[in-house]
Parts: sequence; structure tokens; C-alpha cells
Amino acid sequence: ETKDVAEVVVSDPLPSWNDGDIKKAIMAYVEDVTNSSSANFIPVADRIATFDNDGTLWSEQPVYFQFYFAVSRVKAMAADHPEWKNKQPFKAILENDMEALMAQGEKGLLEIVMTTHAGTTTDEFEALVSDWIATAEHPIKKKKFKELVFQPMLELLDYLRANDFKTFIVSGGGIEFMRPWTEEVYNIPKDQVVGSSIQTEYEYNDGKPFIKRLPKLDLNDDKEGKPVGINRYIGRKPVFAAGNSDGDLQMLRWTDANKLKTFKLYVHHTDSIREWAYDRTSHVGKFDKALDEAGEKGWSIASMKDDWNIIYPFDKE
Amino acid sequence: ETKDVAEVVVSDPLPSWNDGDIKKAIMAYVEDVTNSSSANFIPVADRIATFDNDGTLWSEQPVYFQFYFAVSRVKAMAADHPEWKNKQPFKAILENDMEALMAQGEKGLLEIVMTTHAGTTTDEFEALVSDWIATAEHPIKKKKFKELVFQPMLELLDYLRANDFKTFIVSGGGIEFMRPWTEEVYNIPKDQVVGSSIQTEYEYNDGKPFIKRLPKLDLNDDKEGKPVGINRYIGRKPVFAAGNSDGDLQMLRWTDANKLKTFKLYVHHTDSIREWAYDRTSHVGKFDKALDEAGEKGWSIASMKDDWNIIYPFDKE
Ligand SMILES: [Ca+2]
Ligand SMILES: [Ca+2]
Repeated sequence: ETKDVAEVVVSDPLPSWNDGDIKKAIMAYVEDVTNSSSANFIPVADRIATFDNDGTLWSEQPVYFQFYFAVSRVKAMAADHPEWKNKQPFKAILENDMEALMAQGEKGLLEIVMTTHAGTTTDEFEALVSDWIATAEHPIKKKKFKELVFQPMLELLDYLRANDFKTFIVSGGGIEFMRPWTEEVYNIPKDQVVGSSIQTEYEYNDGKPFIKRLPKLDLNDDKEGKPVGINRYIGRKPVFAAGNSDGDLQMLRWTDANKLKTFKLYVHHTDSIREWAYDRTSHVGKFDKALDEAGEKGWSIASMKDDWNIIYPFDKE
Repeated sequence: ETKDVAEVVVSDPLPSWNDGDIKKAIMAYVEDVTNSSSANFIPVADRIATFDNDGTLWSEQPVYFQFYFAVSRVKAMAADHPEWKNKQPFKAILENDMEALMAQGEKGLLEIVMTTHAGTTTDEFEALVSDWIATAEHPIKKKKFKELVFQPMLELLDYLRANDFKTFIVSGGGIEFMRPWTEEVYNIPKDQVVGSSIQTEYEYNDGKPFIKRLPKLDLNDDKEGKPVGINRYIGRKPVFAAGNSDGDLQMLRWTDANKLKTFKLYVHHTDSIREWAYDRTSHVGKFDKALDEAGEKGWSIASMKDDWNIIYPFDKE
């Protein structure tokens, strides 16, 4: 029996990655650990891959996209809160005064998130996020936020899944902010999303059950919280992990502690033209200690400028 | 082309279930919601099935099996705790005095669980459970605990998965007590196990990360805690849920609140010969309010005596 050449040529699973060291290393790793005759073979149940979201799967400049959602909520809720006109941090948002807002610091940001993310039922909050993500646009890129995802990372997710890896998001962002759209955008089901969470409470009134969102932090899924979240939700160490900042250092160390062969990947924002360029001194996605440690330990650092031939899916056109 | 009769006969997916109303209702439901031309069709992403563990997937008499694990830990740890000889509830355990132990009440049981389940790293605790479950035997049945699982429920799990349902455990039992063996016994991966949990903390010493188990409750995944756990871990309402006691009532109500077509199943322990018979007055697996409500609402109640032709996998021989 003869085969057409086209039939035996294996198509490139990572076409948006340039043929450099990082792409080669990823493919060599996957081919090794899925080869049942390799000493590094990993059983399917252990093929856990965890991905940070902000700055790793989608952009995060000039501020985390979840913040724009919170701002839209403050504006929508303002009619019921006339006192916000004279009360920070809400006043700054209503007056579009970014400088005054930033002056409120972390405490101000936390107050905005708690005010806008709690107080609803889980069903109501899901509807609010779904409505927002369907249409909301990035103020600089003039694209929908959900279009600002990285095409090379979408290909990497697909490639890992095609090799029986189970892909998870492990993000400092809100779990219930991500779940309404991760299936559509990343092909990652809701139960494979790990994120920061607030406490909830079950209630039952007039024969109807609902879950209320409370203004109390449950899990801060960032830094030390990432291994805690991975243990809570996944129950085993990953073999593959990708991040972009100091917030991912503990996740990558936790992955590296796996006895199985592992792959640790950082995305380095080096492309000031097509995306943004930032690392050690950025207020968003600071990449400093983790950049040093990755260098020392020989973990993989993908440069957006050099390793990716396109950034966003719409660049394909 | 002709086909052998054997090729076209569809084999029975639930052979350990007698041909009664419950089996018929389960199969009619699955055939309906997986039929793409049915008005009740459920997309694959929404095919979430949640199962209680104790008394639903395996036995739970005379006490929850996790308690035997805790007792074995008390005995193993006793050498380092000479004071336990004169201190309840430990004294009762070391003297095999069940009556004195029960007299300690819930507070005593909680103290035993906290003492035996916290204080280790997650890796150490997993090893302790794995070692125990591999050999520990039930004192009355004289079988390994992991053999005392319900064959009809194993078939139901397989049948649902064959129809693209994602199967989860949602148990009041400890999440880290179940995860080491649910893959082997139920074919349910660790990240699809929801259970009660204690708080944890990430530490990093000498370049080595680990997660410490703390003596503080995190989630009590029982009663009102089950919908909270489902929301936390799964992020959507189930369409199929199975339980056996009042502790599952809220999970089944939460399932029933799904806008999609749902199936609510209770396992009723009615077989005093082959397993145990108990319900309204049992200290373990009390089935009282939930039994009444299931009757009123027409939810399915499987009688172990009448609906199951075998109980355990070893009965097949
Ligand atoms: Ca990030
Ligand atoms: Ca139960």
C-alpha cells in the first residue's frame, strides 16, 4: 500500500511559534513524556498542565482586564449609590480620574472588587460577566477583551490536550470572573479553572435554592496561594506550568518538585510594537525575581518578540 | 453486508440493576438528554453528574470508613503521645472502648479527625492514606474497605461516562482521604473529587516547597456545604445527582434548580442480609426528611434489596 506524501507529513501543531529553542524544547518534552518506551513516560492521569491567565493567556496592560469589568459595575451601580459621588475610590472611577484612583492603592482596589463582585447570587454574577465579556472593548487596542488572547498559547493548549494533558487555568484573577467565558475562549471547562474566590453561602427560600456571594476573601490564588489552589482543586502537582510574572514563581517551583519530568515556561513581554514590553519594574505582571530564578535554573523563557510570529488570533488575517 | 446478531444487540449497561422502574427511569433519562433531536438535549459541557460517597458509592456501617483510618492513625501515633493513655477521646480508642468513644460525641470525633488528619504535609498524608487503603479490612465484612463499593453504582458511573457525562464525587468525607484511591476504585480523577477540607499553607525551605495541613476546618462539604462545594469546584449545577441521606438534600435541590432536565437519585439501604437496612433513625446516613421530600417530589429512590441483584463486585463470583 502506498501513501500520499501529504498523508505522512505531520502538520506543525505550533505554527505561530518560530522555530527556536523554546518551541523545540516544548515539542521534545511532549514527545518524550508521551512515548511509552521512554524512561520519562508520564501516565495520562498525571499529565496536568496549569496556565496562569493574565499576561500568559491574554494581555494585561495597562491594567488587569478584570478591573475594567469592576469599573463598568461601579458605573452601573452608581445610580443606587449617590454617596459614591463624594466617596473614594468610587468618586475617582465616576470621574474617570485614573490618577486619583491609583492614589487609593491596593486597599481602594480591593474595596472596588468586593463592592462590585459580592452581594449578588452566583447565577446573577455569571450573567453580569457573560453580558460584559460579550461586548466590552479594550480602550487602546479597540478589540474585545476576549479577542486579546495569545494565538501561540491557544495552539499550545490544543497541542497539550491532543497529547492527553488536562489543561487548567490557575490565576490570581477571580474564578467566577473567568468561568463564564473560558470554555468558549480557551476550551477549558469551568471545573478546570482555579482562581481567587470570595466566600459564599447557600440559602433556600420559598422552595428555591441559591448561593449568595459574600464580601469576604476565600482564596487569594496568587504567589503562595497558587500551590494551595492547585492542591485544593487539582490534588496533584502539575508536570507542565506556564506563567509570566513573580506571581507564578511558587506555582513553577511546585511543578518543579514533581518527581515526574516537568516543563516550566515563562512568557516574557518583550514586544512593545505588537503587544507591550515590560518586566522588572512593571506595576502589572512584575517579572523580576522569577526572571532571575528562571535564568539560574534553566527554565524556559519565551520572548513574545522573538518566539511568536503572531500575537493575537486576528493577526492571522 | 450482513451483521452477526451479536453485533447489533446492545448489551445491558446496568446488568446489576433489576429491570424495575428505577433502572428504566435512569436509562430513559440518559437516552432523552443525549438525543440531539430531543427538546431535552443537554450539551456535553453541561452533563455534570455528582455522587455522594459514603452510603452511595460504598458502605458506611457501622461507622464511616474514614473513622477506621483515623483510629489506625491514633494507634500509630500513640507512642509519641503517652498522655493519650489517660486523655479522652484517645483513651477510648486505645482501649477499643467504643461506648466510651461514642460518649465523647461530635466534639470528640472532630478532635480525633483534626489530630490525625492535620500536622503532616500533603505528600505525607497521601502516602498514609494510600498505605492504609491498600490493606485495611472491614471488621465485620472481612473484606478490604475498597472492595465494599456498590457494583450497580460502578455500572451507573460507567454508563454515564459512556454518554459523555463528567462524574464527580461530592462527599462529606475528607477530600484528601478520598483522592488517593478514587481513580483506582471509581475511575474518578482527583480533580473531580469534592469533599470536606482543612486549611493548608505553602512553605518553602532549603529550596524545597511543601504544603502543610493545618488543624482548621476549610469546607464542611455536607448539607448546605454541598451546593457551596459544587459551586466552588465545578462552577455549574449538576444535571444528575445521587445521594443516600439527609446530608444530600441540598445537593439534590441544587440539581433540581437546574433549568436543564435533571435526575435525582437516592440509594435506600433496605437490605439487612446483603448489606445493612437503616434510614430514619440511623446515626450514620440518617435518611428522614430527604426520604419524605423525595416521595413528595417524585424523585427516584433505589431500594438496594429490590433494585440491585448484587451489591459488591465480589458478589459476581
Ligand atoms: Ca500573570
Ligand atoms: Ca452519604
